[in-house]
Amino acid sequence: MSTATPSYDDLAAHFLRMHRFGHLGSIVSWDRAANMPPKGNDARAASMAELAALLHRLRTEPTLGDRLSRAEQEPLSDEQRANLREMRREWFLSTALPEALVEKRQLITARCEHAWRSQRPANDWAGFLENWRPVVAIAREEAALLADKTGLSKYDALMDRFEPGMTSAQVSRVFGAVRQWLPGLIDRVVERQAKDAVIEPVGPFPIAQQQVLCRKVVAMLGFDFEAGRLDTSTHPFSGGVPEDVRMTTRYREDQFLPALMGTVHETGHGRYEQNRPRELLGQPVSEARSMAIHESQSLSFEMQLGSHPGFAKVIAPMLVEAFGEQPAFEPGNLWRLMTRVKRGLIRVDADEVTYPAHVMLRFEIERPLIEGEIQPEDVPSLWDAKMIELMHLDTRGNFKDGPLQDVHWPEALFGYFPCYSLGAMYAAQWAAAMRRVMPDLDARIGRGDFAPVFDWLRQNIWRQASRWSTDELTIRASGEVLNPAFFKAHLEARYLG
Amino acid sequence: MSTATPSYDDLAAHFLRMHRFGHLGSIVSWDRAANMPPKGNDARAASMAELAALLHRLRTEPTLGDRLSRAEQEPLSDEQRANLREMRREWFLSTALPEALVEKRQLITARCEHAWRSQRPANDWAGFLENWRPVVAIAREEAALLADKTGLSKYDALMDRFEPGMTSAQVSRVFGAVRQWLPGLIDRVVERQAKDAVIEPVGPFPIAQQQVLCRKVVAMLGFDFEAGRLDTSTHPFSGGVPEDVRMTTRYREDQFLPALMGTVHETGHGRYEQNRPRELLGQPVSEARSMAIHESQSLSFEMQLGSHPGFAKVIAPMLVEAFGEQPAFEPGNLWRLMTRVKRGLIRVDADEVTYPAHVMLRFEIERPLIEGEIQPEDVPSLWDAKMIELMHLDTRGNFKDGPLQDVHWPEALFGYFPCYSLGAMYAAQWAAAMRRVMPDLDARIGRGDFAPVFDWLRQNIWRQASRWSTDELTIRASGEVLNPAFFKAHLEARYLG
Repeated sequence: MSTATPSYDDLAAHFLRMHRFGHLGSIVSWDRAANMPPKGNDARAASMAELAALLHRLRTEPTLGDRLSRAEQEPLSDEQRANLREMRREWFLSTALPEALVEKRQLITARCEHAWRSQRPANDWAGFLENWRPVVAIAREEAALLADKTGLSKYDALMDRFEPGMTSAQVSRVFGAVRQWLPGLIDRVVERQAKDAVIEPVGPFPIAQQQVLCRKVVAMLGFDFEAGRLDTSTHPFSGGVPEDVRMTTRYREDQFLPALMGTVHETGHGRYEQNRPRELLGQPVSEARSMAIHESQSLSFEMQLGSHPGFAKVIAPMLVEAFGEQPAFEPGNLWRLMTRVKRGLIRVDADEVTYPAHVMLRFEIERPLIEGEIQPEDVPSLWDAKMIELMHLDTRGNFKDGPLQDVHWPEALFGYFPCYSLGAMYAAQWAAAMRRVMPDLDARIGRGDFAPVFDWLRQNIWRQASRWSTDELTIRASGEVLNPAFFKAHLEARYLG
Repeated sequence: MSTATPSYDDLAAHFLRMHRFGHLGSIVSWDRAANMPPKGNDARAASMAELAALLHRLRTEPTLGDRLSRAEQEPLSDEQRANLREMRREWFLSTALPEALVEKRQLITARCEHAWRSQRPANDWAGFLENWRPVVAIAREEAALLADKTGLSKYDALMDRFEPGMTSAQVSRVFGAVRQWLPGLIDRVVERQAKDAVIEPVGPFPIAQQQVLCRKVVAMLGFDFEAGRLDTSTHPFSGGVPEDVRMTTRYREDQFLPALMGTVHETGHGRYEQNRPRELLGQPVSEARSMAIHESQSLSFEMQLGSHPGFAKVIAPMLVEAFGEQPAFEPGNLWRLMTRVKRGLIRVDADEVTYPAHVMLRFEIERPLIEGEIQPEDVPSLWDAKMIELMHLDTRGNFKDGPLQDVHWPEALFGYFPCYSLGAMYAAQWAAAMRRVMPDLDARIGRGDFAPVFDWLRQNIWRQASRWSTDELTIRASGEVLNPAFFKAHLEARYLG
């Protein structure tokens, strides 16, 4: 086949091949979380490491630099050029880290994470610290290498892998603004909700019924069950591939809201994946834009739509059908249940109002930690001070519900936390943009007509994939770059309106 | 690391690496059958083809021949030497087929198999024949290349991949003996059973209860659920890896015996896999000996043990617990239900007495077909003649329950069918060997004490894996090579005793 773009075509084939190996990795990862019996773990880990090593070799193939340069001279469409930009980025970052460091990091974090599983329940900060010091050391080493290569600061270089183009200066600007008004807003919301009479739902809520309900809600939210599944795992997540998205959730008999809202959250991730541009699948330009943009989709579903009073109206009769009539299912009461704000120690249990406090606290600790401005042993006292400041909660000596609570730090996932709250802010910005073009949006949601939400997201986010930088995507979708004022307006309207 | 066997060690690492990639393939294959939604199929097929191509390259690496020869000069243990023999065999066979032929075969069989799915229900032999002629042609081409390489006849060269060392001369000898007495034995058994009063079980048998029952039976049969699973798929099979065996079965509400006995069958495969020598996993010598030996394990479970009157006694109270009391569950009646013999058109529905007739018929057709002695269009009339001869059943014009019934021929799986009945014969030979050393075996089975069966199989079959040739394994386990007299004695004792 003769072509005017031989180097580009050859690269596209190379990346498609990596994508196919990645497909296998996605499915066996999902299987590990959803299905694998305990004795399968070692053989699975060895097999996945073999695949990771293969992918690393393919990603860092020595000839790729020249091939990229040659392709850049070819007559390409804008889309192909965007694809080439993403290819170059992937190659550039992969070659920054020597394989020995990648392997060493893997060993050190696996040891720390494994011990953490028992150290956390034992509240054993001292024991954790011993394994965590080498984790921080190797993360700094990794950050230094990436910083050298990219010209970014160390922390920014780590964050850039999850959130391309985002800098800690920008995060500080955004979080700095939120920090001004959030503690006061939490106070006012908590005070105001104290006067609400909320009727608690009465369980048990049989898991079989919860599963049926969740599947119905997922289908109502437009997830294509012909191209994906909903299963159970200890830690809910969304994985698989766009043609076969694997979402998981977890159930407990005494409550139905966590599984239901968790499922709504994963459905946002799932629909983004299912609606990435099919004709480009396998190419880097078809990948999801970033972790914050991904999170903006799950939160568009869970918070903007799923915690909307109109959604409570739609869901109420489905609850009656699933569990029988009870006073708690009255739509107004249901909505109050869904939007109850409560200061707490645990990030993953937090509501949308207090959640950013958890994230800002982590950002304010992990950034200086990676930059070498503070040391691992300084973390607990900083944590305590910030928890008092942001949430009026005393956490002294309670490491397990403090700096030991997340798996991110034992795993050296530094630079990831900000994405959660950036995602919430993007989601608020998308909702505001929708309302500008669709003034009757809220009424339509209340009638169970969610199509306008999905259409807007499909057009502005899902189909765009990695065509544009995050800032350009945001401007095209909403007229400006990330602006936390939309998030503030959303919280005020919903919780103080 | 210095070592006295550098070439052997290097080969062992190479084969371990292939094994790990194979692990990924096993899990995604299982997932495709058990979980994958329909729209995931194309991407999955492409990803699995990518993995197959990688494995083919690793298997046929040009340096392997020299490395094998060097390793053969090293001071190896008997076990290492057996491993090397299996490595050489795998390499030797893999290099026989050019990649172009493998790819062409894949395309031709995929087309034939895909069309067959609708041609079979439509009874469309003429339509099928059009796609099947190229399938037979490429299978002959493949057979000719393998025959050139191995010095075997064409059909034997195909069969040798599933059943190393087995020849059509040996199969003809064995099947020839069976053919002498089987049709008469079927006649006598059917006549004798006509007098039995058998009470039919009364359904429905809720699938949830069947699942609980099957799990209990599988656990009772010693399957380790910490190293495997039991799930549902359209076509029951056993897959996965020894550390994580994935068995599947299928349920229907109106009957419980097919799912139960199918599960017992798969558990035989599953325990063989789970008990292959752990310390050698990843090396060819640890692989299951052959397809017939694998089938001898599933049939040791399903037929020798699972259809034993003592097993019916053990299982009867479990049925009462699962489905409530009913007259059909009386142990004697239950056993008559389990061992009912009925001539039929469909191989997969056949009982153990008539099953060999289905297999011999296929062997007698596919062997001359591959050798070029008959042509694809000759198959239906041969089928009809042999069905009359073996089973007194007229199948003229009924292609869908005749030569169109199996997926093997559309997929060019020639040489596989004999393994099913060889497996049944090996299983009878194992049971006879067990009884020689354990005269009280039947009484112990009746008391639910199955440990002697498992211990014998573990010691003589499972732990031996591919240490010996099939004939040597058989002699070591039972004192002689395959002897169909044991199968005859088993059927006579069970059905005419």
